[in-house]
Amino acid sequence: MIPGHEIVGVVTEVGSKVHKFKVGDNVGVGVIVDACRKCDQCVNDLENYCPERIDTYNGVLPDGSLTYGGYSDIMVADEEFVIRWPDNFPMDKGAPLVCAGITTYSPLRYYGLDKPGLHVGVAGLGGLGHVAVKFLKAFGTKVTVLDISPDKKSYAIDTLGADGFILSNRPAEMEAAAGTLDGILDCVSVVHSLQGLLDLLKPHGKLVVVGLPEKPLELPIFSLTLGRKMMGGSMIGGLKETQEMIDFAAKHNILPEVEVISMDYINTAMKRLARGDVKFRFVIDVGKTLKAD
Amino acid sequence: MIPGHEIVGVVTEVGSKVHKFKVGDNVGVGVIVDACRKCDQCVNDLENYCPERIDTYNGVLPDGSLTYGGYSDIMVADEEFVIRWPDNFPMDKGAPLVCAGITTYSPLRYYGLDKPGLHVGVAGLGGLGHVAVKFLKAFGTKVTVLDISPDKKSYAIDTLGADGFILSNRPAEMEAAAGTLDGILDCVSVVHSLQGLLDLLKPHGKLVVVGLPEKPLELPIFSLTLGRKMMGGSMIGGLKETQEMIDFAAKHNILPEVEVISMDYINTAMKRLARGDVKFRFVIDVGKTLKAD
Repeated sequence: MIPGHEIVGVVTEVGSKVHKFKVGDNVGVGVIVDACRKCDQCVNDLENYCPERIDTYNGVLPDGSLTYGGYSDIMVADEEFVIRWPDNFPMDKGAPLVCAGITTYSPLRYYGLDKPGLHVGVAGLGGLGHVAVKFLKAFGTKVTVLDISPDKKSYAIDTLGADGFILSNRPAEMEAAAGTLDGILDCVSVVHSLQGLLDLLKPHGKLVVVGLPEKPLELPIFSLTLGRKMMGGSMIGGLKETQEMIDFAAKHNILPEVEVISMDYINTAMKRLARGDVKFRFVIDVGKTLKAD
Repeated sequence: MIPGHEIVGVVTEVGSKVHKFKVGDNVGVGVIVDACRKCDQCVNDLENYCPERIDTYNGVLPDGSLTYGGYSDIMVADEEFVIRWPDNFPMDKGAPLVCAGITTYSPLRYYGLDKPGLHVGVAGLGGLGHVAVKFLKAFGTKVTVLDISPDKKSYAIDTLGADGFILSNRPAEMEAAAGTLDGILDCVSVVHSLQGLLDLLKPHGKLVVVGLPEKPLELPIFSLTLGRKMMGGSMIGGLKETQEMIDFAAKHNILPEVEVISMDYINTAMKRLARGDVKFRFVIDVGKTLKAD
């Protein structure tokens, strides 16, 4: 299997019926490469929720063969599932946006956490979380970052411009912030306390989860009922919104923090990933066309 | 302590500054009898979410004394926390609406499950659930009832007019209904499967919880993310909405199923309640002014 679903590149060839792109265009491909194109989800530009969507790698095509991802010199993709890369927008740093970017942008929009004046928390300052902070600052909200690593405080405040930082494993800090947030984007992918996060919300606040802990989380129902709070999920986004997201990112110069590596560094990179030693995404220069930072 | 927070009665005396009611008016008092009247919640008619709200019984008044509920011949209440009883609307059958009614009406409105054409599930056909079905039918939605008691099927369909009934402890019935509901009002107060209910929702569906299981429930996060589903809580309603609810109930002749008893039957009634032997609420004729059915 060839993985990779945050892919950018240059069009080298187009089929005779392609009308959206021409040779030489900069493009991106994200998490899905096809869908049924006729269900309620597809006709409403929500291909990501189509029951027949096909993942970019390890997805099953109609003929039973598998899809292969972007860790490759070349890739064939249907133009409807390709996004146009904005002019003068860095392809190396921007690559993770086609997954990490849309995964955070879409729920912030859908659940209405994109309004100036709101105070929004971002739980888990990693690959998803740091992009979420950048989007929120561009939307004009006040942002508080929650993480268990004290090391991340100065990065959150000084580099990302977050307005606050809470060590979520320190009860005193959590209690001091109870009832202060309009919403939280929860990017944490390990088992954690939902009640702790729900307690931070004002009445009618929203906890939106995009991380995927392997085990079920404990939800005390009174945490939802007492203040009419809600929890919502979200999973990447449709193609139209992915294009909107990348255009918004380009306009506001929102770029993930990445470390560009060459393909022959991949085994070392995997080891570093396993111990969390990357800030925040590796980008592989498959075609050897980029200069590493 | 004197309990009781679904109270109806007739005004026998009014203070000199009372302007909303006069002697002889029929009125109701629900779950709360006061609040701060100046916080964000109170000024937005959401006194039920005021951090300083005072419960109708066992609540603490500013002088430190406790409030006493409605199992009593007389009761003193502030006019701002009293609702006007609609003309010709039965006081015995209607009494539970000031808690069970608003507890179900408010979230169905707030979460938008009140639109004709929607297909809404009601989980748990008890004191709350059967009122929810009646509201939903009045709103014009399609309604499917979920319960673990086969006995309740004919009551749900034939008496309440539900469009469907699912035995929620039969996996085959649950699987056959997967992805068919726009929303569910979850009135179950014991530990139960959230994933089972979330799987019944269409993408972007809403699971609204008003039951209060004592222990936390297990929430597999992918149940929310895969179809961008949400869960919301709700707790009774504000005074303005409680008045709106009771007027709506009177207009549509929505009345809970009750068994009217006299005060000297109360110990027997408590024993029957403990074994679930009531359909669905006992109403105590404290003043001996009602005729039992």
